[in-house]
Amino acid sequence: MDALEILSDLENVFPYFQPIFSADEQRVIAYEVLGRYKTEGTVISLGPFFQDDQIPDEYKFEVDLLLVNKALEKALGLEEDIFIFLNRNAELLMYGHGEPFLQELLAYEKKGLSLRRIVLEISARNYSGDLNQFDHLLQYYRTYGIKIAIASIDSDSHYFERIGQLEPDILKINLQALKSTATGVNFNDVLFTLSLLARKIGATLLFENIEMSYQLQFAWKNGGRYYQGFYLHPPTAEFIQRDLLKHRLQEKFHDFIAYEKRKLEAVYTTAEYFQNSVQEIVIKNKSAGYHDLFQALIKKMDQIVFRIYVCDEDGFQKSANIFRGKDGWSIQSDYIQKNWSWRPYFLENIIKMRHEQKGILSDLYCDIETGETIRTFSFPINGEDYLFIDIPYQYLFEHDQLL
Amino acid sequence: MDALEILSDLENVFPYFQPIFSADEQRVIAYEVLGRYKTEGTVISLGPFFQDDQIPDEYKFEVDLLLVNKALEKALGLEEDIFIFLNRNAELLMYGHGEPFLQELLAYEKKGLSLRRIVLEISARNYSGDLNQFDHLLQYYRTYGIKIAIASIDSDSHYFERIGQLEPDILKINLQALKSTATGVNFNDVLFTLSLLARKIGATLLFENIEMSYQLQFAWKNGGRYYQGFYLHPPTAEFIQRDLLKHRLQEKFHDFIAYEKRKLEAVYTTAEYFQNSVQEIVIKNKSAGYHDLFQALIKKMDQIVFRIYVCDEDGFQKSANIFRGKDGWSIQSDYIQKNWSWRPYFLENIIKMRHEQKGILSDLYCDIETGETIRTFSFPINGEDYLFIDIPYQYLFEHDQLL
Repeated sequence: MDALEILSDLENVFPYFQPIFSADEQRVIAYEVLGRYKTEGTVISLGPFFQDDQIPDEYKFEVDLLLVNKALEKALGLEEDIFIFLNRNAELLMYGHGEPFLQELLAYEKKGLSLRRIVLEISARNYSGDLNQFDHLLQYYRTYGIKIAIASIDSDSHYFERIGQLEPDILKINLQALKSTATGVNFNDVLFTLSLLARKIGATLLFENIEMSYQLQFAWKNGGRYYQGFYLHPPTAEFIQRDLLKHRLQEKFHDFIAYEKRKLEAVYTTAEYFQNSVQEIVIKNKSAGYHDLFQALIKKMDQIVFRIYVCDEDGFQKSANIFRGKDGWSIQSDYIQKNWSWRPYFLENIIKMRHEQKGILSDLYCDIETGETIRTFSFPINGEDYLFIDIPYQYLFEHDQLL
Repeated sequence: MDALEILSDLENVFPYFQPIFSADEQRVIAYEVLGRYKTEGTVISLGPFFQDDQIPDEYKFEVDLLLVNKALEKALGLEEDIFIFLNRNAELLMYGHGEPFLQELLAYEKKGLSLRRIVLEISARNYSGDLNQFDHLLQYYRTYGIKIAIASIDSDSHYFERIGQLEPDILKINLQALKSTATGVNFNDVLFTLSLLARKIGATLLFENIEMSYQLQFAWKNGGRYYQGFYLHPPTAEFIQRDLLKHRLQEKFHDFIAYEKRKLEAVYTTAEYFQNSVQEIVIKNKSAGYHDLFQALIKKMDQIVFRIYVCDEDGFQKSANIFRGKDGWSIQSDYIQKNWSWRPYFLENIIKMRHEQKGILSDLYCDIETGETIRTFSFPINGEDYLFIDIPYQYLFEHDQLL
């Protein structure tokens, strides 16, 4: 791409707009502005131009300013609750200490475009300047109501730490990057925890590069509120009709919701099965010791459990483990008096069981010793003892609504 | 530090050992090996020597090998369930394609030191080589039972992504780094989600640089199983008595557990208060419309809630919001028909309420519109309608057990 050709032919530089849809409204709530250049009858992306380190920043800034101008001019005609996403890398943002760009935005505010509708999609990848100054500039922009989105898990920056520092309004997750760089199973876990982090800090998740139906479902299931990608709509020169996909998205969500509810019902039914089975055995063995209780449990649930133990309400283990390994059941006495109160959810579940006098079936998690994905059923035996029953992957796999 | 002085005086190079304690056993379960050099009567750290880019890798490798030898020789006398943590940066690990180091370890295996007890604490910060080869080497080591720990949130590598790729056995979290680089509140959230990620992938959290009691509590509360730091024990030339801190740690954990249980009880009591109050008002207004129900609720709970609405079981909002802003209560009708099923926990809570016919008080999270930390009480009105009541920060603050 010849930079000088572009700079001497600015009338052929113009913005494309890729619509962003929201899960709550099922219609367009934003457009991302993308740079395009028309040459010899074809439209090409200006992405490589902006990423080319050989091209001086002032050239890039000139082209970018033109794009922003043309895009915002057009955006004046949009409904007032539609956001405009503008891509900014650190160099572009810091150009002229960020002042010329801000003045440009303020000029459009005077024309009636609230700066609350501007979302800066920033990337500090490979930025060699002072990251503190960069962060200060972002905070300054925010005082005008401008929003900040940070992009993609696969950046060079310290993602987790950056989320904590910047408190972005929006976290953008590139489904393409995710697919190529990590294995599926862990990804699910990484995204699940990211969705909880977003919830905790009040950030919105935007999934981009959605190219297939199952990716939309994945985004929906993992707390995604905003969606973008060719599966929904490609970037185009013109804005689209806001409700274009409303019907299709509603149908899709209806399917996702129905599927998810069936899975949740299956988990609920399983919890009830364990509740009834375990309660019955516990009552029958009320005056028996732990050993006899465990024997009664594995007699009835041999292939359904692989580890059983008892803790007190502070998490100190009162019994040995009874554990089914390759060679059948064995007793592991060195677990007596270990403490498990530091584990996530442990005390929370104890308090819940104490009050409701009912068992709890856990979420899926990875057993720290066997490395298997399991669930645990916990059950209040009496005012002091809590029974923990670990359910192996094999059982969950055979009842795949439980995975 | 003069590299040649050290290399010509290797008898004064020796390992120090910092004990690592576990929450479940309240005793030493590992030692981290640290390099030391004795010069002019004082003992100095070899950290700067290993981090000095000017010193050739072969010098570093020679000194490291000596340290590993002296450390493992000593470790032969330890109990067989104690782990040995060895620090490896990528250059040191890749030296000689990782073979000389592995041969060294295998020699100690013959002497009776199981490689399952070796934990490599790796850091790929600033590594200029092939990260894929590095990862392959780690997987190769693992086939011998060797464990992998990855260090600290403040590294230059893609932390989240790396966790997904490497599936480390242990995630090491430096409490010092955390304190200096981000604000307190977000940190809590980042660490909370990290603890859930660790749970999901079966990794153990190790907190290092614990220097004060409240840091130990922070580590314990955030799913930390292993702890290390001057507050517990400084590095020393000799191993320590395993149960040295057992009594003190048990007392500490006892306090942490008691404090946490009181907080959980307070949340439970609040949930019951909302359950009783809301149930009473709902029953009294059984045949009233949403508007009258909301009026009855805010009449009784004016300062306790700031937003009320009703959804169906698929998450479609059936009522407007009634919302208390700066100017008092107002109706927000444009929320009708929005869908909230994509939010974390939404459908899960619906299914739970449907079955148990009881309300749920949520965890603390950040309201996406007001930016405030809030909780939500949700309640099943009948077979179709679910009431959502958002509780403002002010109320939680005044009842600080709820924060």
